[in-house]
Amino acid sequence: MSNQELSGRLLDVLPTCESAVIGQPLSAEQASELAKVFKAVGDPIRLRLLSLIASHAGGEACVCDLTGAFDLTGPTISHHLKVLREAGLITGERRATWVYYRVRPEMLTRLSEVLAPTNLSEAGV
Amino acid sequence: MSNQELSGRLLDVLPTCESAVIGQPLSAEQASELAKVFKAVGDPIRLRLLSLIASHAGGEACVCDLTGAFDLTGPTISHHLKVLREAGLITGERRATWVYYRVRPEMLTRLSEVLAPTNLSEAGV
Repeated sequence: MSNQELSGRLLDVLPTCESAVIGQPLSAEQASELAKVFKAVGDPIRLRLLSLIASHAGGEACVCDLTGAFDLTGPTISHHLKVLREAGLITGERRATWVYYRVRPEMLTRLSEVLAPTNLSEAGV
Repeated sequence: MSNQELSGRLLDVLPTCESAVIGQPLSAEQASELAKVFKAVGDPIRLRLLSLIASHAGGEACVCDLTGAFDLTGPTISHHLKVLREAGLITGERRATWVYYRVRPEMLTRLSEVLAPTNLSEAGV
């Protein structure tokens, strides 16, 4: 399954309300899709890569911009970038020598909304 | 390290701004603490448990309220609840026969804020 397919699927199955985790129980299908993405960010290297890309000048970064922040080889960085792409959290576009990565803000927004406890009072907490 | 220690530590090290992942690169320490919590929710059973607890009447649930939703044994459910507790996402309080679980809204809020791409324009996306 391509990253476009996975992320499209996630955006389809997740509810659009602002606090899916809090307001109502997630279905097994929703939880399965969502867990794949949280698993992708459940790694400190990938979290740092995501934040480095998002905060880089112009909102995009290539591997050449990222390797200096880690004591890791290029192939290891590339592996983690692939996991983030497959989870639909970033896109990659090849231009000349390098692939340039950007975060997908719609995915971050959806993940953020799913966790936001805005309906806590309704849930009785 | 107890769940109170871990969650207290996470709340200490994470920035309080609304889009830590987007607005500035996470430090290695922040990413390490945060990744532990995302790893805990990077599992479909734990995500469903979290949403079931949060949306249960009164905002709390015991194992007896949760097992019916899964084709899993009680000990397996208890294991997943322990992971959520150790990540600081839920609390558990024993009353008579049962332990009653509640979500920790401050942790969900913090996780949600970290992912929210509210400062995307500042980051140039």
